[in-house]
This record gives sequence, C-alpha cells and structure tokens, in this order.
Amino acid sequence: VKVVTGGTVIDGTGAAPITDAVVVVDGDRVRSVTRAAEGVLPQDAEVVDATGRYVIPGLIDANVHLCVLPPDLLLEYEGRYAEPIEEAAQVTLRAGVTTVFDTWGPLEPLRTVRDRIRRGQAVGSRIFLAGNIIGLGGPLSSDFWPPGDLLGQDTLDRINRQWEQGVGQDLLWLTPEDVRRRVRTYVERSGIDFVKYAASGHKSSEMRLITFSERTQRAIVEEAHRAGLTVQAHTTSVESLRMEIEAGADILQHGDFTGLAPMPDETLTHIVDRALPVAAIVCTARFQASVERHGSELMRTLLHSKIKDDNDRRLIERGARLLLTTDGWLFGPRLRAHPSIAANWKGLEDHPSRLGESHFLWLQAVVEHGMAPMDALLSATRNVAEAYGQAAELGTIEPGKRADLVILDADPLADTRNYRSIAGVMKDGVLVDRGALPVRPDMTAETTT
Amino acid sequence: VKVVTGGTVIDGTGAAPITDAVVVVDGDRVRSVTRAAEGVLPQDAEVVDATGRYVIPGLIDANVHLCVLPPDLLLEYEGRYAEPIEEAAQVTLRAGVTTVFDTWGPLEPLRTVRDRIRRGQAVGSRIFLAGNIIGLGGPLSSDFWPPGDLLGQDTLDRINRQWEQGVGQDLLWLTPEDVRRRVRTYVERSGIDFVKYAASGHKSSEMRLITFSERTQRAIVEEAHRAGLTVQAHTTSVESLRMEIEAGADILQHGDFTGLAPMPDETLTHIVDRALPVAAIVCTARFQASVERHGSELMRTLLHSKIKDDNDRRLIERGARLLLTTDGWLFGPRLRAHPSIAANWKGLEDHPSRLGESHFLWLQAVVEHGMAPMDALLSATRNVAEAYGQAAELGTIEPGKRADLVILDADPLADTRNYRSIAGVMKDGVLVDRGALPVRPDMTAETTT
Amino acid sequence: VKVVTGGTVIDGTGAAPITDAVVVVDGDRVRSVTRAAEGVLPQDAEVVDATGRYVIPGLIDANVHLCVLPPDLLLEYEGRYAEPIEEAAQVTLRAGVTTVFDTWGPLEPLRTVRDRIRRGQAVGSRIFLAGNIIGLGGPLSSDFWPPGDLLGQDTLDRINRQWEQGVGQDLLWLTPEDVRRRVRTYVERSGIDFVKYAASGHKSSEMRLITFSERTQRAIVEEAHRAGLTVQAHTTSVESLRMEIEAGADILQHGDFTGLAPMPDETLTHIVDRALPVAAIVCTARFQASVERHGSELMRTLLHSKIKDDNDRRLIERGARLLLTTDGWLFGPRLRAHPSIAANWKGLEDHPSRLGESHFLWLQAVVEHGMAPMDALLSATRNVAEAYGQAAELGTIEPGKRADLVILDADPLADTRNYRSIAGVMKDGVLVDRGALPVRPDMTAETTT
Amino acid sequence: VKVVTGGTVIDGTGAAPITDAVVVVDGDRVRSVTRAAEGVLPQDAEVVDATGRYVIPGLIDANVHLCVLPPDLLLEYEGRYAEPIEEAAQVTLRAGVTTVFDTWGPLEPLRTVRDRIRRGQAVGSRIFLAGNIIGLGGPLSSDFWPPGDLLGQDTLDRINRQWEQGVGQDLLWLTPEDVRRRVRTYVERSGIDFVKYAASGHKSSEMRLITFSERTQRAIVEEAHRAGLTVQAHTTSVESLRMEIEAGADILQHGDFTGLAPMPDETLTHIVDRALPVAAIVCTARFQASVERHGSELMRTLLHSKIKDDNDRRLIERGARLLLTTDGWLFGPRLRAHPSIAANWKGLEDHPSRLGESHFLWLQAVVEHGMAPMDALLSATRNVAEAYGQAAELGTIEPGKRADLVILDADPLADTRNYRSIAGVMKDGVLVDRGALPVRPDMTAETTT
Repeated sequence: VKVVTGGTVIDGTGAAPITDAVVVVDGDRVRSVTRAAEGVLPQDAEVVDATGRYVIPGLIDANVHLCVLPPDLLLEYEGRYAEPIEEAAQVTLRAGVTTVFDTWGPLEPLRTVRDRIRRGQAVGSRIFLAGNIIGLGGPLSSDFWPPGDLLGQDTLDRINRQWEQGVGQDLLWLTPEDVRRRVRTYVERSGIDFVKYAASGHKSSEMRLITFSERTQRAIVEEAHRAGLTVQAHTTSVESLRMEIEAGADILQHGDFTGLAPMPDETLTHIVDRALPVAAIVCTARFQASVERHGSELMRTLLHSKIKDDNDRRLIERGARLLLTTDGWLFGPRLRAHPSIAANWKGLEDHPSRLGESHFLWLQAVVEHGMAPMDALLSATRNVAEAYGQAAELGTIEPGKRADLVILDADPLADTRNYRSIAGVMKDGVLVDRGALPVRPDMTAETTT
Repeated sequence: VKVVTGGTVIDGTGAAPITDAVVVVDGDRVRSVTRAAEGVLPQDAEVVDATGRYVIPGLIDANVHLCVLPPDLLLEYEGRYAEPIEEAAQVTLRAGVTTVFDTWGPLEPLRTVRDRIRRGQAVGSRIFLAGNIIGLGGPLSSDFWPPGDLLGQDTLDRINRQWEQGVGQDLLWLTPEDVRRRVRTYVERSGIDFVKYAASGHKSSEMRLITFSERTQRAIVEEAHRAGLTVQAHTTSVESLRMEIEAGADILQHGDFTGLAPMPDETLTHIVDRALPVAAIVCTARFQASVERHGSELMRTLLHSKIKDDNDRRLIERGARLLLTTDGWLFGPRLRAHPSIAANWKGLEDHPSRLGESHFLWLQAVVEHGMAPMDALLSATRNVAEAYGQAAELGTIEPGKRADLVILDADPLADTRNYRSIAGVMKDGVLVDRGALPVRPDMTAETTT
Repeated sequence: VKVVTGGTVIDGTGAAPITDAVVVVDGDRVRSVTRAAEGVLPQDAEVVDATGRYVIPGLIDANVHLCVLPPDLLLEYEGRYAEPIEEAAQVTLRAGVTTVFDTWGPLEPLRTVRDRIRRGQAVGSRIFLAGNIIGLGGPLSSDFWPPGDLLGQDTLDRINRQWEQGVGQDLLWLTPEDVRRRVRTYVERSGIDFVKYAASGHKSSEMRLITFSERTQRAIVEEAHRAGLTVQAHTTSVESLRMEIEAGADILQHGDFTGLAPMPDETLTHIVDRALPVAAIVCTARFQASVERHGSELMRTLLHSKIKDDNDRRLIERGARLLLTTDGWLFGPRLRAHPSIAANWKGLEDHPSRLGESHFLWLQAVVEHGMAPMDALLSATRNVAEAYGQAAELGTIEPGKRADLVILDADPLADTRNYRSIAGVMKDGVLVDRGALPVRPDMTAETTT
Repeated sequence: VKVVTGGTVIDGTGAAPITDAVVVVDGDRVRSVTRAAEGVLPQDAEVVDATGRYVIPGLIDANVHLCVLPPDLLLEYEGRYAEPIEEAAQVTLRAGVTTVFDTWGPLEPLRTVRDRIRRGQAVGSRIFLAGNIIGLGGPLSSDFWPPGDLLGQDTLDRINRQWEQGVGQDLLWLTPEDVRRRVRTYVERSGIDFVKYAASGHKSSEMRLITFSERTQRAIVEEAHRAGLTVQAHTTSVESLRMEIEAGADILQHGDFTGLAPMPDETLTHIVDRALPVAAIVCTARFQASVERHGSELMRTLLHSKIKDDNDRRLIERGARLLLTTDGWLFGPRLRAHPSIAANWKGLEDHPSRLGESHFLWLQAVVEHGMAPMDALLSATRNVAEAYGQAAELGTIEPGKRADLVILDADPLADTRNYRSIAGVMKDGVLVDRGALPVRPDMTAETTT
C-alpha cells in the first residue's frame, strides 16, 4: 500500500481539483481518493509526498508508432525489433505517458514487448496494439518506403510480412466477402488489441484516393466488433472520412485531416452530435509558422495546410471529443539524419511526432486552438480510455482503476507547459525510476561522432 | 444516289446475310437494302460493283485516344494538336472504322476535328468525344507522365488544363455535391458527346485504389443523364467495377480488367442479366504468349494477366454484350521509339492498342475466345451504336441509317482475318479515297533516318 | 562627336582618377581623355554632363550564359532562342556591362544576336561566344538536364545538336588525334570567338573526374591557338586545373574551384608568377553565410564550400589576376520557380549567377576578400579585355578604344555599392536608353498571376 | 607422395603433351613429370589413375569478385562476408580453378578467407587479393549501387569503409603527392597481394571519364612497385588504357574494353610488342548474339558492343598475351532475381561473369575468336601466373611448383568444351572432394519456393 499525499488531484473525471488530497494505492489499483481532512491514512503505507504538487492520471497517447525504421535499419535490426520498441515505450513512460496505442507496427515484436511489460518483465508504457493497418503494406512497400531496385523481392517480402500479417495491400483487389474472411482470421489469430484499417491511401500522392468500398468498410467494422475490438480508420479526405463514419468506426484516426478541402459542416456536425472521438494531430502555432517559412511545397499545401489547422480549430470550437494523438516515433540522431527523413523536417520546429516530447506540444496546441485546459487534460486521459473501451481500467484516478499517476510540480490547468514539470510517474502502483529510462539508449542515444 | 450491287450484305442486325444484294444510298443515308431479284435499281445511280464481295456496316471503336503524345511531343505540337488527331481519324477510317469514341483527350482540338469532319471540311472517322476522364489529370499529371522536376509548374498547368477542363484530379478532394456542380458545368459547357469518369486510379500503382465514393459516383451519373449523355467509368478492380454498375453507368469501360482478382460471378451475372455493354480489350493468344515470354513483371502479373484473359473468356461464354474496344492510339515510329513507351512493348506481338490495326486483332481475339463470328460483327457495329445511344443513326445497314459501309473481298464470318480484305469504305454515302489517307502523314510517317 | 564633361574619369589603366575630365568621343571611338583645364572642347559636340559623377570603362563579364533554359522552355522556345539571348544581352547592358563572353550556348542563335548587335540591328551588350564547351553535351544530355525517359532520343538529339556542333561528349572516347581533327573543324567553321573545353566533368557527381588526357588537352589548345583563338578550360579539381595550365590554356575558367581539396601552393604560385587570368566566381560573405544556414549538403560541402572561398582569398592575397565572372544567366520568375532550379537556391541570398545583378555582387565580394578597389575595377574591365586578347579595342578609356563608358553617380573606389549608381551607359559611342531595356521583357517579366 | 599415372599431361609450358605420363607429387609440390616408360614410380605412393585422361595445370582466373552483394544482402550478411567469400572460392575450386585473383572486395573478410585457405583451415581456390580499386568507392557509393535516400549516411559509411580502406573516391580530389602517401600507407598496411587502381570511371555513365592524371597514375604505380606488388588498372576508354600503359602498369584489366571507339592500332602494337598481359573478358558468339537480340541499349552499344568484340579478335589475331578473366561473381538464385541485376541479364545467354561456369565459356570464346587451343590453355594457366609474378609457384606442372592439377576425361585441346569434363582437381597436392563443395551452399543454393 502506498499513499500519495498533500497534492492537488485532478482526477480526470472533469471534477474540480481536490486540494490536499490523499490517494491510496493498493497493489496496482487506486483504493481511494480523499481529502486529507477526511482522514483515513492506512498504516504502514509507503508515503509519496506530493505537497504543493499536482497529481493527474497517467497520460494516454491514442496513436504512436513504437517501431518506425528506415530501410537500412529495418535490415540492421532484423530479428530484434523488440529492442527499439522497448526503448520507445520507455521514452514515453519517462515523459508521463503511461499508456500508448500503437497503430501500425510489426506484430510479433510488439506483442512481445506488450506482454513483457504487462508481466512486469520490462518497464515501459502500457501498450495496446493494432498490428498492421488493414489494406496497407509493410514498411518496404509502396505505402511507406518504396525500395526501387535496391532491395530484392525476397527481402521485401520477408520484412513486409512481419507487418502485413495477411491483411496487406492485396486486400484492395478483393470482394467485400473475401476481405471479411481475411480480417476475421486476422482478428481471431493475431492477438491484437484493436483494429485499424485504411479508408484512404497513405502516400501523399495517394491520399486523395479511397482504398475500400463502403461495403468492404462495413465488413471490416463488423468483423472487428464481432471480435469485441474497437475499430478506427486512417482517413485523409472528406469522403473517406464520411465513409469511415458511415461504416461505423469507433475512432476517427487523424480525422482532422481532409487534404485540399475543409471538413464539410455536415461531417463536423455528425462528429459533434455523436461525440465521435477524433484522434487529431493538433500542432502548435510555432510549428505552423515554421512550415509556412521552411516547409516543402507538400508540407505547406497538403500535409500541414491551413485547412487542417482550421479543421482543428472548428472541431475544438464545436466541442468535438479530441484524443491526444502524436503519431509519434523515436526521432533520435540516426533517424533525424536519415536522408529519407531529414529533408522533410529541415527547419521545422515543434515536430508533432516525436515520442516523449510531442504530447506536451499537443496539449499546448489544443489550448492554443481554443480548448479549455480541463478539456485538454480529459483529451489526454479519460477520453482516450473511453474511446478505446478501456474506461473501466484507465484514464482517471478513481477507486478500482489502475494506479497510473503523474505528479507535476506545477498546475497543468494554469499553463500547459506545466505538463513538463514531472516530479514522478506511477504506473500500476509502482513509481517509475525515470532517470534510468531508457534502460539501453540506442535510437535515442546521442552519438559522439 | 448510289447503289452497291452484287455483294453479300451482312447488315449488322444479326439477320442472315443477304446474297446478291442491292444497297441504295441516297445522300448520306441508306434508302433500301434488297435482293437484286427484287428489282428496283434506281435510274442514273452511281453503281458500286460489289459482286463476290461482302458488305458490312462501318466498324465502330468504343474506345480510342486520338491524341496520345509523350511530354516532348506535347510541347512540340502545342497549339496544333488537331494535326495528329486528324491524322489518327484518317488512319482509322482507312482501316474501315467509320466511327470512333474518343475517351480521353484535349477538348478543344478534338472538338475542332470532330466538327471539321462532321461538316465535311476534313476526311476521317466520325468522332464522338468525352474530353477528360472526370477525376483524372492531364497528360503531364501523376496519372500519366509524372514529369519529375524537368518541367515547370506553369508548363504542366498550361498543358494539363487543355485536358482537365475543371474536372481533374482535384475533384477527388471534394464532397459529392461539389463534384456534382463541377460536372454539371462541364457537361453543359464543354460540347462533349458522352461522359467518362474514373472509378479507380489510372497509374498501375493506383489501379487497386478507388477514386470516388459511391455517393459521388451516383452524382456524376445523374448529371450525365440529366444532360442526356451516356456515361461510362474507367474501372480496374472488382470493387470499382461493382460500384460503377451500382452507380448506374451505361458502359463498362475495360470492364474485363479486375486486376489481381477474377471478376466475381455475382458481377458477371449482373452484367449478363442486364445486358450491360462491356468495352473489353480482348487480346489475341499470340499477344498473351508474347507477354508471357517477354513482358515485364507488371505486364505479366497485372496489366495483361491470365486473370483478365479468363474474364474475357467467361464474359464471352456467358454471352455478355461486348464492344469493340482498342484503347488505340497512333503508334508510329517516334512513339514506338520513345523511352517512356518502348520498354513496355519490347518483344510483344499483336499490340492491342494500335490504331488502324488493333480492331482487326480484337475481332480475331474475341472469336479465339469463343464468340460466334456473327456476334463478333455485332460487337463491332450495332452493339456499340446501341450502347452509346446512336442506334437510330449508326451500326447497321438499314433504311434511314447513315450510309457507313465496309466492302470486303472475303467473308468476315468465315475467317476474322477477312476484315482486313478491305476493298472499299463508304462513310455518309461517300466512298473514301483510302490510298490518300492519312492526308499528311506525320506521326505515322516512317522516317528514313 | 560627343563630349563627356565634368566627371572624374577612372580610365581602367590603373592610373589615378582624372577629375573634371573631358572625354571626347568620335563615332564609336574615344578620341581623347583630358582634363577640362587642358582645354580642347570640340565645336558642335553633343555634351554629356557628368559633373560630380564618375566615368569608368564599360564593364566586361568574362563568363555568362545568355541562353540557359530548362527542358520545357527549350521546347517552348525552340526555333527562337535568339529572343531570350537578346533579352539577356539587354539586361546586362542596362546594368553597365557593355561586353560579355558567353561560354556555353546554342551556336547559331548566339551568332545571330552577336551579329545583330554588332551591326546595330539590336541593342545589347557586345557578345563574344564560345559555342559549346568542347567535350560536354547539350542541355538535355547527362551533363546538364538528364531527361530520364520523358523525352525521346530524337528530341534530345535535335536540341543537343544545336549546342554540341560536333564537339560533344563523344569526343571523350577518341584519341588525341581524332579529337584534334574534330576541334579543328569546329574552330574553322563555327564562327566562334574563343574556345572553351572541359578539363573535368560538369555534373556535381562528375566534378572529381577528368575528361581529356593531357595529350588531348594539348591538342585542343594547339588547335585553338592555331586558329588565333584564346582558350580556356572548365576545371573543378586540383589536377584538372594543373592539367589545364600545363596544356597552355589562356584563361582559367572558375579556376578558383578545386572541390574537396584546396588549391595547392605550387599551383597558386604558378598562377601568380605567370599572371594567368583566373575567372573566379567570388561570392559575398552574405551569400556564404546563407549557404551555411540554408544550402543543401551539396552546396555547402562541394559547390560553395569554405575551401573555394579560401582559394579566392588566397588568390587575391597573392595578387592573382582575377576576372569579373558571374556565370550568369537570366534568373527571371519562370526559371526561379522551376523545380529543377528552385530547390537549389531556396533561402540563399546574393545569388552569384544572376545576370544584371551579380557583377555588382562580384565587385563587392572581391573587395570583401581583400582586393584593392582599383584592382577590382581593373578585374572587371582591362584585365578581361587583355585576357581575351581584346585589349586593343576594349577595357579602358583611352584614345582609339571603343567608347564604352559607364557614368556613376558615386565613386566606385570609395564603395563598391556605387557601381549600382548608374547614371548612364555608353556603348560604341552611343548613349543607351536604359529605361527601354529589355525591349521585350519575357524571361524577366514579372508575371501577375 | 602421390603419383598421377597413365594420363596425357599438358604441362602449361606450351610443350607438346606427354602421353602415358607419371606426375609425382610430394607434399604440396610436383616432384617430377615423366613418361611412364622412363620408369621411376616411387614406392608406397598413393596412385591416382588418370589412364585415358588429360592432366592440365589448375586454372587461374585473373579477375574475380568473390564478394558481390546487392544492398539488402550487404546488410543481411554484415559481419559475416567471409561466408559468401568462402562459398565462392569453393564454387571456383570445384570447377577446376585452383587460383583466383580477387580484384575488388572487402579487405578483412577476404584476407580471412585467403589465410584460412592458405593454412588449410578451409577448402577453396587459392586467393590473391587487391582489396579496393584505388580511387573507387565501396559498394554503396555512386560507383556501384548509389543508394538514393533509402540508406542513411552512417550505414553507407560503415559498409563502404570495409571496401575503401582509405583509398576511395576522395583520392580523386588530391594532388599526386597526396595520393602517393595514401597509397603507400595502403600497400604497407593492408596485407594485399597486388594493386588495382581505377584509370577511368566505373559506372556506365562515367566510363568515358578519366579518374587520375598521368602524374598521379605514375605515383600509384611507383608505390605499388616499391612495395614489390604488381599493379593493374581498370580502364574503359582508349585514352585511359594508353595512360595506364604509359604509367607502367603490369596488367591491363579488361584492356579490351575501349567503349565507343576501337582500340587504336598504336596501342594494340604497343601491347603486342611489350607482351603486356591483357585480362580480356572475351565472350562467346552465343552471348554476343543474345545481346544483339535481347540486350538493353546500354548492353548493345557500350558494354558488349561489336567494338569490344572486334578488339578481342584483333588482340588474338596479333598474338597479344591474354589472361583468363571472368570478372565473375556468385550468380545464384537470390542475385539472379535481384531487381538491380535481373533486368540487365534478362534474355542473355552464356553470362560471362558467373563464377564456376564462365571460365569454361571464356576458353571456348577465345578459341572462337581465333586463338590456338594450346594458347588458350596457356592463357588460363602459365600466363596468368607470370603476369602476376607467381610463375615460380604456379601455372605449370613442373618440378618444384605447387601441385595444382585438373584431370579431364577428354582432351581440352581437341575441343574447349572438354574443360568441363573434370574427373578430378588437385590443389597443393591434395585431391579435392568436389562433390562436397560448396560446403555450406547458401548464395548458390537453389531455393524451393
């Protein structure tokens, strides 16, 4: 039994902060949250003194990619992708993100790390995983790093297979019923935690295109629900977003991105009325300004256009239910310098997809875009848990929930920068030794050469 | 008044051939088709002696591209695209194709040549035109010849605009209602004869992807029909084909192509039951064999796979209503040698898309695939006219119809090679001076260097 | 007869400025340069009042490219390259450059404009031309804009031939004697004014490579000299520079560029001792700083590295004989925006190759690098004339020389920025109507879209 | 002690074959070669019965690449390149090639395998190695597989360094003296057996270009000779070949290749008069014919043009001293199918660079080109040994030499195809268990998928 005492608890339910609170943690669960005045401090409890501090639920990122590696590193790390995945989950945990939803990655190593962390064999953020994005290919396919003629087909197949798991690009050629069968097999056998499919193309030149017909999308959603899994779609256009919604998806993944046309009011109303969770990659004004000055044509006109930024503002103004979403990955020295990556990010500030950093920016950005500070906190905690059907376990500091807490030196509702003032992180009732993370820095190790 | 006497008339209605027939032509129309025995030869008629020959309706190609030019020639011929278009229409007329449907090209020069030919100012096949494929870009867009960084945006825009006419790639970003408005303006103002839209991507790497949602496709079809135009879609996959059919399209453009999966029986049954016209690019066995031996990976596995060939066989076996379709363009010396083209066709025989030649191969190929010779003839005449709503004017040798005839030395029903034995071509009642075509050989001129 | 009175004449001989001077111009020649006090003002002379102003010789640019067009414009302007060439020669004249040496361009149109200007049929800087760089290909060859598979070989040949003139890339395969024959024919028949050959490769990836063996280089130099022409080589490395010098070239074209290794002291001493003219592209500190911040890897490490900048500083410190050299071309709106060009120059300031502007920057840059102001002026006037064997006609304001003058509002020796304060330009004794230039703005016209 | 009895010995000296011969082998050396009639069969000798067979010296390939791997395999096999190298050396040994000269490869693993084989720790052809080609980069440099932006600079550097060893592309920027220093360090410290440098570029687009000036080439040759090593140059043009010869190189590597111009008679005479060894990649008529029919433009016009084939014919006619040269590498299933390789070889027969096979084709090809059968045998044995300064040890069956023998079922002088009729291979006096080679088939393993 542990007690966190003296702090102001913002419990993630939206209720007013509780000052001078006592959080009693029993094993991996919260037993109670009370005012100190109410009295009951358990005997022999280990005391965590949070006097003058702020206690919030562990943050939850609705969209990360723990394993993003360019072609050479895919080969260099082959057989041990669990290493960068574990490092990534430690980088997030250190920064107060106790739970992450991985929305595209290699199935087996992700499962391995997820399970190692669940069983306490490794330290890291709690992982939920989707495996592949149904309908897209692996990292060495045309959807991500088309390899030209430098890599052999056997190499491509061997690597891509670890991502695709039978639900790759070839599904786009099939009938709804054939896709349904493939998805059923996948959700039954893969051990994934939720389903993500592509409703539009992934490469920038294919974002205007649709992947699956409405009938097929419904089949995918039905199969996910049949297996008790939430389902989300990758969408990048006005129509693919509408199709996803009509197909019955539970979460709109980067649903704020509608390419060259703004989100129609009808769709926006729909989202608001149904309280559909939108995993929106909201960016800071500083980032938008740097894109304007230094971004490539593609960045400026499509990927991070004013249209998208306006969509975010409209969503927030209308009270849509946003989820903390970084699309983050390990942006360490080797990846930063990689020619396939460096050019896109040259001169840009406040990179919105950098694990361990970008969730701070997101919280800042949504408030910049008009969201109330308390709503911002809910977007990064309770809302994500609810959207993914994990509200019974995660997202708030309430009796019976998992004891995932972040202790801050300063009030996050007063200034979003205070999310950075982390004094401690507790996950499953255990205080994290943040200074020791990541255990084996590799991707994030600063090289000396 | 002219009379074509002594020949065996296969009138394109499917009726038995009329031996020793007399076709009376009055002006640009057929006045009567009778047996010689029945007697009435008009006085003072110009006699065309077809004794021992075969008289069939002028052939109609449901899908040609009179203006296909690679990037350098697009610039070299800028301002005078009418020249290669006119040449192309003469190459087809010479070979017995009295009517062609151009399904993608530059609007203004196509209209110019169409009208010049209609008014008798130029000789050539009768042209019906669609202008752009709604949803695709011009020739220097990513859909056709992506120009890398060799050409400036101003050049691309200037050229592509001549094709796109406000209904290009950017429509894929819009809502159904916005697309509807753009299409309405296009059909009202462009002077096109029929509508073609893209239901799937065009580049080989995008053929698995869908362009427009079902709702948008219905909007496009409605606008076409509202303007009294037939409508067809470019489809390249099982689902895009189904979506086109459900949207209510009148003609299935290369509906035999379903990529990496065979046409579902359900779709096939649908096509057969509703007698939906399929513009299928059926290829000869010799072509298929050469693809097998010398074709690129892409040719063999996607573009001209056994799956497509089987689809053709199944369509014919089930009695689907096929239309002569070559997708033909001028394949003269300069284009044959062009690096963007040559590599794809190296070593292949019976090229299925060569204007002036490929319709012969198509007629041969459908019979090879099991079609009855009379049905083959109907597929190249009456069926196309009916599919495009032109049956009152074209497609058969019947009183009141336009006098478009081909006179053959040998029986086309006995051997499809006999379509090549052209003794004469009459269009609108006028005998064509075939030896003089094309009037100004340029694209098709054999160079001496 | 005209007289320029009242100004301070800096005559380009290196002599002290003559205050209150009278320059008498008779026809296209200078008749005399005297102090006003000395008296002899001709009767009926047209008076150009330069009171309080500075009169310097017309500037001479040792290296320009009047016709640089990316692939699409090469096709768009085919048959009328004289237009952009004439425009370019007017842009330079307006800016005080009365003579330019074109070191790579299409032979026939360059000759046409050169001769039109010589005969007074067109206004523009006096042109001397080299035609092709012997050993390099035309603009659509691998040396400049390798066209991938977008352009046909016939197009490439047709365009490139206008540059190559029988002395293109294929010379690199030949023996010294075969090269000699080809060069002899070229210098005898082409009507060029001087010879330029490639001693090293041109593309950035080939700059470390050598084109011609020493024996071949000597053969080229001999043939040029045999025809009475000066000869220069394109060099980009330590060894190609040494080879050029040993082969006997008269001018070292961008001899300051030695790639990844600094110019050896031995070579530098050689250059200084023999007073070999170096056409060095000296850049301003502002440009170098912007390269450091925003330039591509290639720009920073190879094309405009600190090594090159140090070479310039060393050359100047040691008193090498530099020539005003911009390598300039028309950098108008269309070319600036062209994708093959824009990326390289994004974010860079003081572009060193912009006709009409860059000679001002060069004069500023050499002084920044330590050159005495008077030497800077000589580098842009007399030295160039001498290097090219034109000292009898050009480069100074002396009796008998062509009357090429620039009248400045402020003293160029006091501040190099004063070269911009142009009050008037006289060429061949005629005052230029600068406001009317270019006569037909096209490349340099600012578009309104 | 072993005796090979009963066979016809063609001893590689050019002497007439010795029928019914006895070769006595003592340890790893030949003790005597006599006619059986002469009598002296040692007691207790192990008898190898060669009755009716032919005994020739072990073949020697003057140019192989034991380690050629495309980018993905370079990464997959990183840290264990010795494996494919050892496999390659076993593939050659099995086919009768007892000694190979590796002319470009990763230094350390090549040395490892060379030494393992020398010490008897591994079976394989005797290896002599050059390490890097001085002046060229590693496999992931622009000289071989330019990696675009798929691989990071750190990966490129890490891999390329294993080849370059301080004598890579950057040498092209340096002065002769700086190159000399780098080469001196390399030959002193690397443990290489002979020196190879680039006299011309390697990529097809750079073959017309020269790498090092004559002065630098002399410096390289001097340093090699100073260290007691033979030296050869990679040349691909008329002038680079002449420069290599004048620099004093000992072997002309693919000296028969002169690109788009034939070898000048002067050079040919030089080669013949000085008996300079030419490592010529002579190809069969069947190969040449298949190139003509199916080869790419590049293959037909540059790499395997008629010019090169004529050079070979002229060299042989004039009696030049050719060396067996395959440029061979392991062309197993994975490499054959690799997209960077497959396209170049599609449809070609008698691939001239396939280890274990191509030396047979070479022997056939030189005789097809007019060489006397006995000279062909010398070209593949004694001549190579002499050219590389190994004549005291290798190349003939003579007392005191290493006992490297190939026993053939049929007479190789009667028909070159008989080189394939291998009954046995002895190396260093040990009979090779050919059936067991390669010991661990990997690159050459036929996959079952």
